[in-house]
Amino acid sequence: MVKVGVVGFGVIGLRLAQGVSMQEDMELVGVADVGLTLTVRALKERGMPYDFYLAVPDNRAELEAHGVPISGTLEDLVQKCDIILDATSAGVGARNKELYAKYGKKAIFQGGESTDVADVFFHGYANYEQGLGQQFLKLTSCNTTGLIRAVDCIDREAGVENVVLTIVRRVADPGDYHRGLTNALKVDKVPSHQATDLMLIMPHIKATGVLVHTPVTHGHFISVNIKPKNPMTKEQVLEAFNNHPRIRVVRTADGFQGNAAIFRYARDLGNPHSDLYEIFVFEETVTIFEGNVIFGFHVPQEAVVIPETIDAIRASLELQKDRLEGVGMTNKFLNIG
Amino acid sequence: MVKVGVVGFGVIGLRLAQGVSMQEDMELVGVADVGLTLTVRALKERGMPYDFYLAVPDNRAELEAHGVPISGTLEDLVQKCDIILDATSAGVGARNKELYAKYGKKAIFQGGESTDVADVFFHGYANYEQGLGQQFLKLTSCNTTGLIRAVDCIDREAGVENVVLTIVRRVADPGDYHRGLTNALKVDKVPSHQATDLMLIMPHIKATGVLVHTPVTHGHFISVNIKPKNPMTKEQVLEAFNNHPRIRVVRTADGFQGNAAIFRYARDLGNPHSDLYEIFVFEETVTIFEGNVIFGFHVPQEAVVIPETIDAIRASLELQKDRLEGVGMTNKFLNIG
Amino acid sequence: MVKVGVVGFGVIGLRLAQGVSMQEDMELVGVADVGLTLTVRALKERGMPYDFYLAVPDNRAELEAHGVPISGTLEDLVQKCDIILDATSAGVGARNKELYAKYGKKAIFQGGESTDVADVFFHGYANYEQGLGQQFLKLTSCNTTGLIRAVDCIDREAGVENVVLTIVRRVADPGDYHRGLTNALKVDKVPSHQATDLMLIMPHIKATGVLVHTPVTHGHFISVNIKPKNPMTKEQVLEAFNNHPRIRVVRTADGFQGNAAIFRYARDLGNPHSDLYEIFVFEETVTIFEGNVIFGFHVPQEAVVIPETIDAIRASLELQKDRLEGVGMTNKFLNIG
Amino acid sequence: MVKVGVVGFGVIGLRLAQGVSMQEDMELVGVADVGLTLTVRALKERGMPYDFYLAVPDNRAELEAHGVPISGTLEDLVQKCDIILDATSAGVGARNKELYAKYGKKAIFQGGESTDVADVFFHGYANYEQGLGQQFLKLTSCNTTGLIRAVDCIDREAGVENVVLTIVRRVADPGDYHRGLTNALKVDKVPSHQATDLMLIMPHIKATGVLVHTPVTHGHFISVNIKPKNPMTKEQVLEAFNNHPRIRVVRTADGFQGNAAIFRYARDLGNPHSDLYEIFVFEETVTIFEGNVIFGFHVPQEAVVIPETIDAIRASLELQKDRLEGVGMTNKFLNIG
Repeated sequence: MVKVGVVGFGVIGLRLAQGVSMQEDMELVGVADVGLTLTVRALKERGMPYDFYLAVPDNRAELEAHGVPISGTLEDLVQKCDIILDATSAGVGARNKELYAKYGKKAIFQGGESTDVADVFFHGYANYEQGLGQQFLKLTSCNTTGLIRAVDCIDREAGVENVVLTIVRRVADPGDYHRGLTNALKVDKVPSHQATDLMLIMPHIKATGVLVHTPVTHGHFISVNIKPKNPMTKEQVLEAFNNHPRIRVVRTADGFQGNAAIFRYARDLGNPHSDLYEIFVFEETVTIFEGNVIFGFHVPQEAVVIPETIDAIRASLELQKDRLEGVGMTNKFLNIG
Repeated sequence: MVKVGVVGFGVIGLRLAQGVSMQEDMELVGVADVGLTLTVRALKERGMPYDFYLAVPDNRAELEAHGVPISGTLEDLVQKCDIILDATSAGVGARNKELYAKYGKKAIFQGGESTDVADVFFHGYANYEQGLGQQFLKLTSCNTTGLIRAVDCIDREAGVENVVLTIVRRVADPGDYHRGLTNALKVDKVPSHQATDLMLIMPHIKATGVLVHTPVTHGHFISVNIKPKNPMTKEQVLEAFNNHPRIRVVRTADGFQGNAAIFRYARDLGNPHSDLYEIFVFEETVTIFEGNVIFGFHVPQEAVVIPETIDAIRASLELQKDRLEGVGMTNKFLNIG
Repeated sequence: MVKVGVVGFGVIGLRLAQGVSMQEDMELVGVADVGLTLTVRALKERGMPYDFYLAVPDNRAELEAHGVPISGTLEDLVQKCDIILDATSAGVGARNKELYAKYGKKAIFQGGESTDVADVFFHGYANYEQGLGQQFLKLTSCNTTGLIRAVDCIDREAGVENVVLTIVRRVADPGDYHRGLTNALKVDKVPSHQATDLMLIMPHIKATGVLVHTPVTHGHFISVNIKPKNPMTKEQVLEAFNNHPRIRVVRTADGFQGNAAIFRYARDLGNPHSDLYEIFVFEETVTIFEGNVIFGFHVPQEAVVIPETIDAIRASLELQKDRLEGVGMTNKFLNIG
Repeated sequence: MVKVGVVGFGVIGLRLAQGVSMQEDMELVGVADVGLTLTVRALKERGMPYDFYLAVPDNRAELEAHGVPISGTLEDLVQKCDIILDATSAGVGARNKELYAKYGKKAIFQGGESTDVADVFFHGYANYEQGLGQQFLKLTSCNTTGLIRAVDCIDREAGVENVVLTIVRRVADPGDYHRGLTNALKVDKVPSHQATDLMLIMPHIKATGVLVHTPVTHGHFISVNIKPKNPMTKEQVLEAFNNHPRIRVVRTADGFQGNAAIFRYARDLGNPHSDLYEIFVFEETVTIFEGNVIFGFHVPQEAVVIPETIDAIRASLELQKDRLEGVGMTNKFLNIG
């Protein structure tokens, strides 16, 4: 059993803990955070399904006053683990890395961290092999993770020459009070970082992207225009997506009208934390135009990176040396596909 | 074991099924709806935890093509049940009532139905006794259910002379595409129906209310100004709320800044469908002003009516003849309080 | 002096009246609508700068009670005019057309009307010549009008082979209560009507488009990917846009961060009704990628069609037979460019 | 002619300049700001209707490169004026005060500044007399300005004992990118500052208030519950409001459904910058309940403070010593009432 710790217990950390605890070949040692956040309050109210380690000793009194059992310090957690999933705020992971290095531990960083924190910039489906045995891996961001899934899927079918994106980005998560837009779209410069990151992971592809922040909280929408190396029919595109465990094809005519319908569907499913691991391609948007493959899809920002992060554990620790075996094991335990 | 059916499997019906299935002294016979909605698709994907009955026979082919097992018609469901929870769209329940009457079944209608559909207008905490043995009961709406909980709580402590409300109403549920406001507040006439309904349930109290629809989806906020019969201190008000199983007191300083934080908390808790049964009083809003009791609270619109609806089953079937015993049994099985 | 009437005095009709009244070679005979709308109340409060004709005689009493002078019926207005600008709700224009035909009048319909209502589907810059002398013209919708301006601009520089769009559509106008989305994106089928309409106006170009409705009110954002016939540099693209009177190039770095900033700019300018006639290209989005021209721009939905509608008057009545002369006269009187 | 300068040329400063320039007994010397904001770009595009003074000399090159004529420094502007309207960001006014004091100038600060910056906390209708001859006055915030208008109106009719408010606050202005909420309500502690400020201006009244921030941009909604000293009928309340030049009574049934409809009405009116100086009481919310006066009204946040700020000039410079004469002169030149 691989021993895994989660450092940073926010939107992503909570879901990493959930995902790891579903892997039958992994043991979640515990989660660490800095103080008595809402998510830690909820952990307490749930009866402490995960052990809690305190990263900022000064906050011990507040946590104890609230009755949160503390299993140790961040350093204690690191020592007990084989690998750390660092889901702290951008910049903190780079500082934590020293601690992981001190004890010779492996670590996986999230997309907000700068790329040079890691030995390899990783995506489970696109470049699993490059993560094999590496000490420090960094995941792509939520948008980019979903994007690369879709592009890699087409790339393995027909080859991809280039990609032009338009990203309609959700500006905040449900519950965010520190960021938000009200009745405003915000335009980013071109190319967006998602296009740049895609080229880092898949250097044989050229990409650019336009990004607009929109005042919604339930997921990103990405419009993709791919120039394939070999021609594809619409049916082939749909078949490729339907065969991909982490991609679902849905129809607006069936009620999947957009981000909010998909979020409601997750709640209706009764999924833990109302989460979804898959991206959702809208069938009515799939088109072949002048030889290019065009489609639009939805990225559930909270949980989309969980499977690829668990893939990273598998690659880093060489639990599975084969790409499809590795991602397949993750999918099996997450009930994906 | 009391046999219960749920008719109308939307936002409320889904949660009634969940709530009934948690009651150890009740059996959920099944749920009925008209066709292949997203919620029915999710039911299928979950492996049919509830049997499905089809209210519109013409849609049988579509459901079967999608692989949804059909356990019978609406009429079949009604015949198998002791009591029906009708959570159909406003107006449909009044038509369904004929079917329930035909088979001599009891039924509980939701707040959208017109009040004269039922023998008694019901709230578990406020007028449980009036529901005892009645054939047809109607619940209050989500806003009013939460409101009466809070007012009844104060009323039983100190007596209430009158109530002035301002309701900041969420205009749509997450996933709604048939209604919504964009960058707009919409003002209703005074008194709002919540004030009128409160007076129907609690005729010894006078009430009025201002209501503004706001472009959010995660719960209503209600500002209440109560003139009590006997004076109360702020501490007494907080103690009364803290002692009420279906009322929680939270602090904005702890991160419960408003509707979105509370919704996130429900997700963090891992609650089924990310739901909450309680209302949430914001401690920093509780004030005694010129002898009046003032406070603001949050109403999670999807699930707030579930406990009181289950109370209605208990009252109608006289499972418990005592108010506190009845609501207490509901609370116990829903893990409330 | 050409005599012009405006039928339908809503968001568009109000601005057509404003635009026509600024043309020194046109006379605005009056505006017509069905009853005492907010816009008619405002007209009264402004002191009736435009004469009002009543399309629904039954509402005369209500208007008179409010003190709105009525200059006649819809039929009266039609008889007094050389040409009618019909800005009624979709479908009404087709019925009104019989009245215009009865008196042998010319008419310009707006984009909501079905295309077969008119002899020609018109855009001032793209196909002015086809409108010359025609009796019935139909404008493109607001989105399409802005889009064709930009595509036509590139087409006249370098030729355009094909266009792929992603449209981030504002879902309602400020003040709309009959439509809206709350925290929801809504995905349309591909191709969107804007792409189809573009091909009707510019049949030598192939186009497709993805469209997402977003919960904002201050303008559409369109991401465009053009394959030109002859290569262009970024500088050439910017120069072409900068030289086009109805296209402005702005920089997000200067504070033009998106739709809301541009709307604020219109208010800061003190423009009538806070309107803008131009589309706004965001300089930081202009890119040459694999030979294609990529850019993003903003469409102010309320007033963007006004110039092209006035162009249509000029073409239909052959006030100017030359395209650039026609649009130039419109621009001059609207203070554009 | 009184010489007036406006320091801080943002949302409020722009409108102060507009308001002062409409006063026939005042001369707007110029406006000052720190750099090349969007509002300064718009000023340039309008042809410099107001002279511009630069508060941060380092930015001179950027402004000149853009062709903005600079009439001098902030210190130059102060020296040329009799009185300064300071509409800078909170905290800046307190620093600027030293400059105003150095030259013995009078100044009016906006609501964001701390109250102790001024000799008197001022509202044109409520305490005009206290501002007479004072050197430094501070206005109430937009919400409080509108609120005091309404409460003062009732107070002068029937006397007011106490007031309970619920404020539904717009969280950002149109065009704001530095603040915003997305699908979130945010609850403040009780009492809100508006209630506290009301008691400072009207010390004979007791007040408290609940405040909720909502994700809209077009104005605040305030629900008011007043205990009058002498009883009033609904008709008397409406008559008092109808007689107040800065209060308008509108009906939701006429289409004034809320903040967005009122903003649209301002645009339809063709008002400069689409502004409104009045507050808008919704007739359908006016109620007498248990002797209390209840109503809801709309506050257009951008321009509501302009009249009272101009009143402050009149009081400070003793242009009119009588309250009704002073506010009446302001109203006359702003075309109010």
